[in-house]
Amino acid sequence: MNQTINGETLHSIVRELFPIFRSITGEGVRQTLAVLQKHCPVPIYVRSVRSGSQAFDWTVPAEWRVREAWIKTPSGEKIADISVNNLHLVNYSQPVHQTFTLQELQPHLHSLPDQPDAIPYVTSYYKSSWGFCLTQQQRDTLIDGDYEVYIDSEHLADGELNYGECYIAGRSEQEILISTYICHPSMANNELSGPVIALALIHWLSEQTTLHYSYRIVFTTETIGTLCFLQDNLQQLKQKVVAGFVLSCIGDEGHYSIVHSRYGHTLADRVANLVLEQNFAEQQQHYSFLERGSDERQYCAPGIDLPVVTLCRTKFGKFSQYHTSLDDLSLVTEQGLQGGFSYVKNCLEVLEKNRVYRATCLGEPQLGKYNLYPSLSLKGSSRPTRAMTNVLAYCDGQNDLLTLCQLTQLTYPEVQDILQTLRQHHLVTTD
Amino acid sequence: MNQTINGETLHSIVRELFPIFRSITGEGVRQTLAVLQKHCPVPIYVRSVRSGSQAFDWTVPAEWRVREAWIKTPSGEKIADISVNNLHLVNYSQPVHQTFTLQELQPHLHSLPDQPDAIPYVTSYYKSSWGFCLTQQQRDTLIDGDYEVYIDSEHLADGELNYGECYIAGRSEQEILISTYICHPSMANNELSGPVIALALIHWLSEQTTLHYSYRIVFTTETIGTLCFLQDNLQQLKQKVVAGFVLSCIGDEGHYSIVHSRYGHTLADRVANLVLEQNFAEQQQHYSFLERGSDERQYCAPGIDLPVVTLCRTKFGKFSQYHTSLDDLSLVTEQGLQGGFSYVKNCLEVLEKNRVYRATCLGEPQLGKYNLYPSLSLKGSSRPTRAMTNVLAYCDGQNDLLTLCQLTQLTYPEVQDILQTLRQHHLVTTD
Amino acid sequence: MNQTINGETLHSIVRELFPIFRSITGEGVRQTLAVLQKHCPVPIYVRSVRSGSQAFDWTVPAEWRVREAWIKTPSGEKIADISVNNLHLVNYSQPVHQTFTLQELQPHLHSLPDQPDAIPYVTSYYKSSWGFCLTQQQRDTLIDGDYEVYIDSEHLADGELNYGECYIAGRSEQEILISTYICHPSMANNELSGPVIALALIHWLSEQTTLHYSYRIVFTTETIGTLCFLQDNLQQLKQKVVAGFVLSCIGDEGHYSIVHSRYGHTLADRVANLVLEQNFAEQQQHYSFLERGSDERQYCAPGIDLPVVTLCRTKFGKFSQYHTSLDDLSLVTEQGLQGGFSYVKNCLEVLEKNRVYRATCLGEPQLGKYNLYPSLSLKGSSRPTRAMTNVLAYCDGQNDLLTLCQLTQLTYPEVQDILQTLRQHHLVTTD
Repeated sequence: MNQTINGETLHSIVRELFPIFRSITGEGVRQTLAVLQKHCPVPIYVRSVRSGSQAFDWTVPAEWRVREAWIKTPSGEKIADISVNNLHLVNYSQPVHQTFTLQELQPHLHSLPDQPDAIPYVTSYYKSSWGFCLTQQQRDTLIDGDYEVYIDSEHLADGELNYGECYIAGRSEQEILISTYICHPSMANNELSGPVIALALIHWLSEQTTLHYSYRIVFTTETIGTLCFLQDNLQQLKQKVVAGFVLSCIGDEGHYSIVHSRYGHTLADRVANLVLEQNFAEQQQHYSFLERGSDERQYCAPGIDLPVVTLCRTKFGKFSQYHTSLDDLSLVTEQGLQGGFSYVKNCLEVLEKNRVYRATCLGEPQLGKYNLYPSLSLKGSSRPTRAMTNVLAYCDGQNDLLTLCQLTQLTYPEVQDILQTLRQHHLVTTD
Repeated sequence: MNQTINGETLHSIVRELFPIFRSITGEGVRQTLAVLQKHCPVPIYVRSVRSGSQAFDWTVPAEWRVREAWIKTPSGEKIADISVNNLHLVNYSQPVHQTFTLQELQPHLHSLPDQPDAIPYVTSYYKSSWGFCLTQQQRDTLIDGDYEVYIDSEHLADGELNYGECYIAGRSEQEILISTYICHPSMANNELSGPVIALALIHWLSEQTTLHYSYRIVFTTETIGTLCFLQDNLQQLKQKVVAGFVLSCIGDEGHYSIVHSRYGHTLADRVANLVLEQNFAEQQQHYSFLERGSDERQYCAPGIDLPVVTLCRTKFGKFSQYHTSLDDLSLVTEQGLQGGFSYVKNCLEVLEKNRVYRATCLGEPQLGKYNLYPSLSLKGSSRPTRAMTNVLAYCDGQNDLLTLCQLTQLTYPEVQDILQTLRQHHLVTTD
Repeated sequence: MNQTINGETLHSIVRELFPIFRSITGEGVRQTLAVLQKHCPVPIYVRSVRSGSQAFDWTVPAEWRVREAWIKTPSGEKIADISVNNLHLVNYSQPVHQTFTLQELQPHLHSLPDQPDAIPYVTSYYKSSWGFCLTQQQRDTLIDGDYEVYIDSEHLADGELNYGECYIAGRSEQEILISTYICHPSMANNELSGPVIALALIHWLSEQTTLHYSYRIVFTTETIGTLCFLQDNLQQLKQKVVAGFVLSCIGDEGHYSIVHSRYGHTLADRVANLVLEQNFAEQQQHYSFLERGSDERQYCAPGIDLPVVTLCRTKFGKFSQYHTSLDDLSLVTEQGLQGGFSYVKNCLEVLEKNRVYRATCLGEPQLGKYNLYPSLSLKGSSRPTRAMTNVLAYCDGQNDLLTLCQLTQLTYPEVQDILQTLRQHHLVTTD
């Protein structure tokens, strides 16, 4: 069986995936899935949805392909060449081969005056358009004259949208959902951190001798791909998913963040709250659903109503490199990925043990019989057993592990250990 | 159709109503209703309840009439003459024509040592009695000698109690209740501010092209008249009234106040809370039901249980002029009345739009299709649409407009505008 | 009929009970019950449970008898003699007659280095063992040599466990439970304060002309005796008991404390909260169920779930003399006992009146008819009746006396007086 892959391996996979020119459809998505599949101990099934299909209020767009794109300056220099950086081209640009004056070209250029050395990431999926992105510094050097624009792209009306899906069966048919996306071109944190940590979780899950829950891991494309996945599976997901996590921007070395569900009370919220409070208390950041921005938008939408939160390290939009060429392989680090992996893994570990517990006997059990209580009663002698009797006192069929931690003011490893001991002695049971 | 009447007009009607000698029964009530009717764009129906009728635990008293009342001092001067100020006579006084020594007279005199220049307002509706009210200053000048007391009043056992009722039909049979009273003699804030603002609301409601709710406006006499109205209509009111407002002391330039319902959680409480918070945040005053004192006492009594609050500017009992001759035409101002009107009108405006909203599609709609979202996705480009997507996210069939404001931290005009746009595009619906 | 016994009498009974050598079974328990019976105005029924019987997860141990126990030092001095202080012997010690070296003896000796002048209280009920307790000071004087150990005890397999039960019938079959224990040897606060205050309560209850609730008072032995009582009566207790109080450590002059039930929301919690807040505000101490340690452990255990709290003055474990020979007749005082008695009696007084009240008429009643309201309405004249109208306003069939106190911000004697007046006039009723 595979070893759980560590931060170093994760970072190497990020580097392998980084150059691929992804979009919400097309070759880049399929290449990315192929690389992930190569590193994955269980199959990733690639799903296909035809262009033109309906996904709730949305229509799957034509599949986009691009081979070459650049601008030739009046001096004959090639700039904004996607073979240098695939962020240079507005994603989903129409094909163009024409010469423009600088004045004519300007409306098609995008740059960030506040971040003069960053190439912005721009898309126009649903409106026919074209454009180039470049640094403000480069843009400021452009002189009057004729600019040759070349975009060799096509939009295949009979194309497809793809997403990958992976399933790991546990004892229960109830599922934990992990969702991440593979639609952004060369950016590291807001793209590749999520998929590689999902991969690491698959490794870790595969290594467990028993799993209570079944796990569904989805590598989708943001919004449209997620809506397609939901359209394909909604009833089943609503029946089975007890908690879900969108992973995004989870490989940097910043805080540990959560974007809460619509009302913030689902099992996913509760388990992440506990992990944040107990393991990352000084580094936790909570964002309400008003500050959402990733696929929790779909999973928690009215009528979808899945118990899903988004887990990040520094949340999308909260780091300056976000959606620019600066979100690169230096922002995402081995240590950052390792921390992000621990964060999600901790949540799954708690969930796996999160049952409602019930004492098996009326009144307190005679713990001394099980060697769980000192036989000699002397002032203070029962103090070390206080944690156990406190847990036991609240095993009344009302409280799950998460609530037991709150009620007893103990950590979840402490409560888990106690519950394991109590179960060995048949002093508590689960429903 | 009439223009909504403004503060200036309202103040002129206050001046017209001010001199009338009102009580809980009698000519003053009917005269007041006639003046209100003259200025009202819809009929005010005058109800009649016979003296001696039972209203729950109460008996409607004999109708009181008074023609003349005064005291003649030893020097022959007429004082405490109701033709000068009708507060001089204890309301519901028995007829008297007799000469008393000052010592004999004193127990029948009422004045306020702490407010030596104010004539107090005193009533004795349910116990046979008589008396006069005067300023402490005047009382202190009285010298020993014989005082002729003359009260030409009568108590008609076959009289009646009157109240006025006005109805404006909306699309729904569900009703908003507005209740105010016309039983106090010449006092301005604690009497006439409520009726004239009710009149202004009737004008405003009549001008609306459509109304969702129907409106019932009651001009009653405090406590007994309100109990008669409730006795006549209780079952219907309990079925139909979704929110109600008692208007009292609402024409001065003080705070904007609410006396909450018994538990403070009715729709009337909630809507007034929102309006106070968003429109009058710095000037709001909240009083619990423990500090009640007007007809919310009856509307919220056990077994009545109507969803009613009282709206005031400076609450009764909280301004020094309260229940004295100092509560006059200088305390109630055009600006004060205009503000009081806005306060209640704002509540009605919110109520009219206060539906439970539900998104029509699963997942987020593709707002770009409706030109509600930028087609080009660039860093920060979706920020202006954030308010709309936040409102939409909580249109899940659980939340009314009031709750949407709280959840999205937006103002109700913002949320109303967004909901209107969303309804135009059939993206939300109401149940 | 007896007079309620006062602090002085209570202290004399404590002194009478103090020398008896109690354990969880045996003569000491029966002697203690006999003394209590002598001072009790109603019968205390002595229950018997055979040794070897099962009580949920526990087995009733053999009955323990002890006649003599001491150590003879190398110099021939008798020390640790139970005829001097019965704490010297580890409770439930096996019989021994043998000579040991000091080194062999040491593991069987118990003392408290931090409290060098205190004899600790040590038990070993459920594991065969023997030992002696002595002050650290005395222990430090022991020299090498031979020590004769003599324990003349026996464990009767065909013995019994006893507890006492007393019942005072009220109009209702619903019960208030008072539970205290009589299993500790010569200690005053953590033993005898509870039983004597229970005795005082029985006197007080017997003197009442009418009681709403029935009262069950149990003199048991901690843990095992309580479990036997529960095993014998559980279904009946679950049906009948509306509130219960364990009394322990309730005769010193410290704070007034409560150990709350598992979730802290039972009627017993609520009534004690009110009494603490209103009568002992500056001296109240609240402990959560996490800090429990007396028979509330059994009464509130999962599946038992009785509405029981423990009332103490200084809580067990929170005073330094706890479980040592220093918990003696100087710690428990007349004044301390008197205060403890008042504390519990106050709770019972409130409970006796704690009904859900409902106004009999719709709207406010005309209080003037009943001479409960001033006939003359003058500014401020209704202020004295405000407490009554506030209570009445919340007599809506939802609130018991406890909640009425909270809602009206009045004391319970004030609310009780008002309710009595209102009931006399048939203005409120109880369900």
